[in-house]
Amino acid sequence: MDLQAIIDDIALTLAERRGEGKVADYIPELAKVDPHQFGIAVTTVDGQVFTVGDAATPFSIQSVSKVFMLTLALGKAGEGIWKRVGREPSGTAFNSIVQLEHEHGIPRNPFVNAGAIVVCDMVLAGHKPKEAIGEVLRFVRYLADDETITIDRAVAKSETETGFRNYALANFMRSFDNLHHDVDHVLGVYFHQCALSMTCRQLSRAGLFLAAQGADPISGYSVVSPKRARRINALMLTCGHYDGSGDFAYHVGLPGKSGVGGGILAIAPGKASIAVWSPGLNKVGNSALGSAALEMLATRTGWSVFGA
Amino acid sequence: MDLQAIIDDIALTLAERRGEGKVADYIPELAKVDPHQFGIAVTTVDGQVFTVGDAATPFSIQSVSKVFMLTLALGKAGEGIWKRVGREPSGTAFNSIVQLEHEHGIPRNPFVNAGAIVVCDMVLAGHKPKEAIGEVLRFVRYLADDETITIDRAVAKSETETGFRNYALANFMRSFDNLHHDVDHVLGVYFHQCALSMTCRQLSRAGLFLAAQGADPISGYSVVSPKRARRINALMLTCGHYDGSGDFAYHVGLPGKSGVGGGILAIAPGKASIAVWSPGLNKVGNSALGSAALEMLATRTGWSVFGA
Amino acid sequence: MDLQAIIDDIALTLAERRGEGKVADYIPELAKVDPHQFGIAVTTVDGQVFTVGDAATPFSIQSVSKVFMLTLALGKAGEGIWKRVGREPSGTAFNSIVQLEHEHGIPRNPFVNAGAIVVCDMVLAGHKPKEAIGEVLRFVRYLADDETITIDRAVAKSETETGFRNYALANFMRSFDNLHHDVDHVLGVYFHQCALSMTCRQLSRAGLFLAAQGADPISGYSVVSPKRARRINALMLTCGHYDGSGDFAYHVGLPGKSGVGGGILAIAPGKASIAVWSPGLNKVGNSALGSAALEMLATRTGWSVFGA
Amino acid sequence: MDLQAIIDDIALTLAERRGEGKVADYIPELAKVDPHQFGIAVTTVDGQVFTVGDAATPFSIQSVSKVFMLTLALGKAGEGIWKRVGREPSGTAFNSIVQLEHEHGIPRNPFVNAGAIVVCDMVLAGHKPKEAIGEVLRFVRYLADDETITIDRAVAKSETETGFRNYALANFMRSFDNLHHDVDHVLGVYFHQCALSMTCRQLSRAGLFLAAQGADPISGYSVVSPKRARRINALMLTCGHYDGSGDFAYHVGLPGKSGVGGGILAIAPGKASIAVWSPGLNKVGNSALGSAALEMLATRTGWSVFGA
Repeated sequence: MDLQAIIDDIALTLAERRGEGKVADYIPELAKVDPHQFGIAVTTVDGQVFTVGDAATPFSIQSVSKVFMLTLALGKAGEGIWKRVGREPSGTAFNSIVQLEHEHGIPRNPFVNAGAIVVCDMVLAGHKPKEAIGEVLRFVRYLADDETITIDRAVAKSETETGFRNYALANFMRSFDNLHHDVDHVLGVYFHQCALSMTCRQLSRAGLFLAAQGADPISGYSVVSPKRARRINALMLTCGHYDGSGDFAYHVGLPGKSGVGGGILAIAPGKASIAVWSPGLNKVGNSALGSAALEMLATRTGWSVFGA
Repeated sequence: MDLQAIIDDIALTLAERRGEGKVADYIPELAKVDPHQFGIAVTTVDGQVFTVGDAATPFSIQSVSKVFMLTLALGKAGEGIWKRVGREPSGTAFNSIVQLEHEHGIPRNPFVNAGAIVVCDMVLAGHKPKEAIGEVLRFVRYLADDETITIDRAVAKSETETGFRNYALANFMRSFDNLHHDVDHVLGVYFHQCALSMTCRQLSRAGLFLAAQGADPISGYSVVSPKRARRINALMLTCGHYDGSGDFAYHVGLPGKSGVGGGILAIAPGKASIAVWSPGLNKVGNSALGSAALEMLATRTGWSVFGA
Repeated sequence: MDLQAIIDDIALTLAERRGEGKVADYIPELAKVDPHQFGIAVTTVDGQVFTVGDAATPFSIQSVSKVFMLTLALGKAGEGIWKRVGREPSGTAFNSIVQLEHEHGIPRNPFVNAGAIVVCDMVLAGHKPKEAIGEVLRFVRYLADDETITIDRAVAKSETETGFRNYALANFMRSFDNLHHDVDHVLGVYFHQCALSMTCRQLSRAGLFLAAQGADPISGYSVVSPKRARRINALMLTCGHYDGSGDFAYHVGLPGKSGVGGGILAIAPGKASIAVWSPGLNKVGNSALGSAALEMLATRTGWSVFGA
Repeated sequence: MDLQAIIDDIALTLAERRGEGKVADYIPELAKVDPHQFGIAVTTVDGQVFTVGDAATPFSIQSVSKVFMLTLALGKAGEGIWKRVGREPSGTAFNSIVQLEHEHGIPRNPFVNAGAIVVCDMVLAGHKPKEAIGEVLRFVRYLADDETITIDRAVAKSETETGFRNYALANFMRSFDNLHHDVDHVLGVYFHQCALSMTCRQLSRAGLFLAAQGADPISGYSVVSPKRARRINALMLTCGHYDGSGDFAYHVGLPGKSGVGGGILAIAPGKASIAVWSPGLNKVGNSALGSAALEMLATRTGWSVFGA
């Protein structure tokens, strides 16, 4: 299978659709991004890397970071985290608060905003926000084996100043005692994690352990157990695209996590870790071209987890 | 891999938990079932069959039938069905009506009751209920390659007389013009499909095409295209266990569909079709021991779609 | 105070707005009504009657009948009815089913459709629908002191054939055991009660007991106790206009009950019973001109219960 | 009518029930209040005052203050305020956020928490919180003709530190641009207004203008127009007791506004302004004995707005 030819062809096919979708504008800093950018990076479990397009351009990974945060929280608190956050698809928008009221402050899963905020509370674990943010950054650099990864302070600041909905979610959960730290501290971690700036190449590298039974196949280091890797993949598949998760599973058939920056991380278990990026979003807030590219990739590679 | 030894051991391990869970009692006829029964049947894509326990006892497959109905409807109406039913997890109970009001009579997916009722409406397609029911029965017999499969009229009658919630769902969708036939006719098909009586052995055989790229590997006949098989599997994984779908994916990692009769059909793409049955249900209405058995099976076989 | 002059002037002022609003079209039979009709009848507690416009034209009183049905049910079952139906405004549309699911089949109040259906179940009280319908008709004729009042069978039939939403509500409550008779029987009563055909003059006469401490001031017969009359008025004020009840109280300040036929019955306690009719409805389903007329009447007479 | 005898008798009758209900404990400072306290004050439109029990003990008026805040906001911004807050009963708890999401950040009415927060935003009107709080205090002192009224800083502080739910509501509305000032500033006003400390005597005096067509009958000064007084009364009746408003109207039949401190202000238009206080709350958060006392008072005086 010639992966380079496949992604080259995908990039070519989608070239005329560049600019499609709507760039996230509720975060002022993100609204400035050129919508015509598009990149793919595929890192296989045997350590090869294939890229096309703007795969070396850093972008704001936003909610894709929630995969790494969940991994961190599971490492710190183990399966006990499921007392404070569910594992079910939400059936609602990423920032909905309705479910929280009906279910007494317990978010549906770690990938909707409310759930990710609880995960940040777990990662804080009594430390100062700066320390926790430092830990997150070190962890992602370690996963990607790349010390150049940074957090975009301008994006973090932009979200801090305009993220009223996240303040609402956090305060709401605090009223149910499902946050244990100051709302400002928890959101400090949350907004900085979302502001991680990575390239497709770095992102596909950072997710590789999920395609390889929890261990980095290049360094050989274990990140999580094989069981935990499977479980994180399961959560990505059922909950990774908000209220478009069913659609993504239907069309692509891979565990994936999207971000409003237009990035998507997808995992082909036993095969590869894939990162795509294109800023224009579809109606449910996932990268329009990114989703299309992954559907094409899954079809041509036969990597769908649901059968060749 | 000695599949027989694996399922024997699972049955032995779970023996002391027989009777666990709560038998569905909202359908009077189902409430009479002995809760200590337990069976597994595994049919592999190379045609071998492994069974343990009560795998030859017929039970009411209930909502497991929705997989076959969806397959029929897709065959008749193609991808156009998605205008009338969604593909997203519901985030609510199997019989919830709240979502229908918020989303104007379009059910979330074909596996919640409302969605399955719409699918029945599609399968009716202008025919009389008797004809449609006959077609459903013929289709399932064909899939299972077994002419002895029947519909339990007592169960169908029991549901017809007490299924007020389903009447509510159907009338509600009718008020949005999302049913095209008489409510009584549509529910006639619905209640009879749910009353299909099958053994684990028959059920695992009937689902085999989903494990084998859409074609029956024994007869060689194609049922659906490989792409459609993948897509049905995807829907089973994201929506097959109502509001316990995320949990099932997390613990088992296989596409599956449960029924309140205590049956579950699970698909290991490229490997096997598995049917388990035990009448006691957990809190979200899925077989308690059946779920446990499948988790053990997935662990020991490494069949999880999310990685070995 | 010259009531005749007041209502003449109101009719004149509103003349140019005749036809405003939208005639209910979800009941085919109602959609045929000429939207330019407009009538007022005021019956004072000292027995005088003032009318203007089409006050002698019979129209379908629809949900206004729920006031008489509630009175009947309270007479039969007393305050015990509040175990099966609430007394709170719904905060939702007249035909919403969402609240029913959240509150386990107990409707919010007797004036939303679901609540009125429960009231019909109470009025049935083991009798046949025909007998119950006969009783309702006799009761309304008695209240209006007019044997010519009829039920419009064509309207009742039209609703029976298209009232899927009401079938949904009834079946839904039946699933919670909050209906004790066959759904078809209960809805038989419901649709016939709604199809009562009355003129403004008859309607204002029928409501007079509510303005006069529960007794008909003309015949002297007691219908309900003074306390019960006050309580029915209270329910009309807080719940009588669906999700426009607060607005009606704000602008008119009188207990009132509207119907999708365009009629409104309003009560000025100690003063008069008023019926207005104009078929065009506003956004929340209440007569547009009827509401306007009552606001003008309340202002000019100083009859608002909230102060002169 | 001997009002003193009536309230004396009510106090005597309810004496043995003192301590009933549950003192609000979600605001730590309020949880300390002795639950056996009980007071009534009736100020008639001809200037007489009748009191019984603890009518001279200051208590935290909490949400009763929302009546005065609404009056202030209407004075500043007129009927334009209804673009940002509704006039309908909510059908949900006082602090529910569900409706806000469904209705895009517009609260149902000015008496649920979210609505009152929007009203605070209007009262702020570009000023500093301190100035707005000063204005509120001056206004209430003016209405009560009593310069000794204060704000309990300990209560305000207690709420500021624990009012996460209100922070959630405010941030949520801010995300819909329905707050124009800093959340902290708006809530500063909100928490201080709630912490107004008044006696029954002061409170009944402060509400007198609502019983007297908008003008203080003692000083003769006009506070609002007669129409506006009627409208505020209407809002109190339909929305003044959260999700117990229908029940209060049914049993008492007077416009009223309750607070979690156990106070209720009720208006008998043309007759009197009544304040009752007893800290124990019923299930929907209104004073248990206060409600009982007002029902008895309304019955014995015949002051119900729904008929003698």
